[in-house]
Amino acid sequence: MIYLDHNASTPVLPEVLEAMLPWLGPAAANPSSAHPSGRAARRAIEAARAQVAELIGASADEIVFSSGGTESSNLAIFGVAPPWSPDGRAGVVTSAVEHPATARPCDRLAERGYRVTRLPVDARCVVDLEAARVAIDADTRLVTVMHANNETGTLQPIAELARLARAAGALVHTDAAQSVGKVPVRVAELDVDLLTVAGHKLYAPKGVGALFVRRGVKLTPHTLGAGHERGVRPGTENTAFIVGLGAACEIASRSLDDEAARQAALRDLLLTKLRGAISGVTVHGALAPRLPSTLYVSFSGANGAALLGRCVDVAASTGSACHEGSERPSPVLTAMGIAHDEALGAVRLSLGRGTTEEDIVRAAEALATAYREVSARSS
Amino acid sequence: MIYLDHNASTPVLPEVLEAMLPWLGPAAANPSSAHPSGRAARRAIEAARAQVAELIGASADEIVFSSGGTESSNLAIFGVAPPWSPDGRAGVVTSAVEHPATARPCDRLAERGYRVTRLPVDARCVVDLEAARVAIDADTRLVTVMHANNETGTLQPIAELARLARAAGALVHTDAAQSVGKVPVRVAELDVDLLTVAGHKLYAPKGVGALFVRRGVKLTPHTLGAGHERGVRPGTENTAFIVGLGAACEIASRSLDDEAARQAALRDLLLTKLRGAISGVTVHGALAPRLPSTLYVSFSGANGAALLGRCVDVAASTGSACHEGSERPSPVLTAMGIAHDEALGAVRLSLGRGTTEEDIVRAAEALATAYREVSARSS
Repeated sequence: MIYLDHNASTPVLPEVLEAMLPWLGPAAANPSSAHPSGRAARRAIEAARAQVAELIGASADEIVFSSGGTESSNLAIFGVAPPWSPDGRAGVVTSAVEHPATARPCDRLAERGYRVTRLPVDARCVVDLEAARVAIDADTRLVTVMHANNETGTLQPIAELARLARAAGALVHTDAAQSVGKVPVRVAELDVDLLTVAGHKLYAPKGVGALFVRRGVKLTPHTLGAGHERGVRPGTENTAFIVGLGAACEIASRSLDDEAARQAALRDLLLTKLRGAISGVTVHGALAPRLPSTLYVSFSGANGAALLGRCVDVAASTGSACHEGSERPSPVLTAMGIAHDEALGAVRLSLGRGTTEEDIVRAAEALATAYREVSARSS
Repeated sequence: MIYLDHNASTPVLPEVLEAMLPWLGPAAANPSSAHPSGRAARRAIEAARAQVAELIGASADEIVFSSGGTESSNLAIFGVAPPWSPDGRAGVVTSAVEHPATARPCDRLAERGYRVTRLPVDARCVVDLEAARVAIDADTRLVTVMHANNETGTLQPIAELARLARAAGALVHTDAAQSVGKVPVRVAELDVDLLTVAGHKLYAPKGVGALFVRRGVKLTPHTLGAGHERGVRPGTENTAFIVGLGAACEIASRSLDDEAARQAALRDLLLTKLRGAISGVTVHGALAPRLPSTLYVSFSGANGAALLGRCVDVAASTGSACHEGSERPSPVLTAMGIAHDEALGAVRLSLGRGTTEEDIVRAAEALATAYREVSARSS
């Protein structure tokens, strides 16, 4: 099985598991406990906080740990938007291609009286900055646009959006679940106030995440309880996975550039091989800056689910793996203006640190074989 | 170091770690993915769901996984209480000794117009059923009272409260974080609609929990995102820790009664030894049914923090380890009517599956020595 589904979830790196194991053993105390084993857990959490901060150019005290990307984005959005828009004027500006972890909190804000504007994207999957200029005004409280799209991998112009938001006095959040650890992400360059990190997209386990909260940004906790994480995220800390997230960020800090270049070359090789074997390969979102790991393709006349169903040696996704599959086209492709049938043909091939050149060669052959079988059956 | 702080956090059992390891390795896919590795993760999660359900006498489809006890209680309370009490009449009945994961969501409901009644407890730390009879009326939406208190270990009369709630048409939630896995907990006997489970109180890791949601109870998700956990708890599932929670529940299902009897005997031995060595030992909350693991004691004239500070061989808590320590007396002891100085003397000694008779004998000696040193210094 060749795993080309890293945008859905990355495996845990052996070094990350090794870092976590001491915190999954018989000696793991509550990090809030005052005795030595509790204090050791506390120190491990603070070391991990510094590692996460380092990767994104933040200070350790600007990092809040959570159970994952979804919780981080909920905390960001609900944390800066009061539960009810008092006069129905307060605005939130987001995009048409957000992950549900951002889109659905924005839906709830709309129910509660916020004006929610969803910026359209062009055929490259890039948000329309002209529309943003119109939408972001003095009533805008929050601009929340993802950094890298989970399907196309396209990077959004966050710094430009932030400039518009700053001028209007709005806060800026970005869901960087897909980009952190894959491309350089620096909070100062993006100029964001809040940034979502998801562990299982960068080789830490599923069930841990972080939120960057710029110093000075006042956040109302979304979940209420004891005073953990400086009062904004209660619940006994998941010491093991926090340590794992720190280790994963440390690895990314060390090797991001080399790894990005390696994966981009393999991704381009995969496309070359596919185009050599199949006529009518369309790439979605390739005309804008994008993640090095992601190749989102449609094969002329083939249904994506049928193709992957035949291609048992390749693990990949049609649309996004976070959502239970149905045969509706991906809303991201629809927003990009891709026609219905072509959208149903889309296959997301996402590479990772473990992907080798041999994997790519074999995957291209397997996909080409599956394509020929599917085409033969349908003709 | 003798670990007598199991109410703060339990270590992960070796069998639990072993069950989790395959899901922390290179092959762990997103459980929402349609390929074989995704489907394997999905099956593991569903097997764990059945194990959790079995321990509490529920059906698998009544279990929702979360990131821990705090999130479970927030989901329960906010999930059944609309965000705003439309007419300021809707009532919530809780107790004066709840964990912050229940008490603080109730605070927020009070801010939003709910009438929140906090039932007092008696000197045994048992809620006043007479006060409950007065408080629970036709406007009560929710009764939320913990099953076992985290400090005293006292078990609350949940079934009696549920009877009053049923008669008034209210829903019932109990935070059973401290009781599940330590004493028999059956949702039918307690007659609750919602029940909180915390992994790290029953030998699964920190960072996972569950909420029992009785079939037919409509729950509004607290956190919004994709459609995981039947739409009530979004976010890519923490496969590893969910599997660990299942394994821990399976172990508890097998061995709960024997282990409870063993720990109760050791707990009583600890008290006997302490009373043999120190005059003026007071036990808090011992006159009502309580957890077999918990001994909450004050030593005449000794400050609890000073005592434990001297007793480097014993890891234990003063008050609750979930809250950053300050020298204010525990609100639980205050609610029980314990005087300020005696409350500051309280030490919570909580036993676990790994506690041996030798640990108990050594801990009693170490505590008695520390007591004598602290007494000598203060006199």
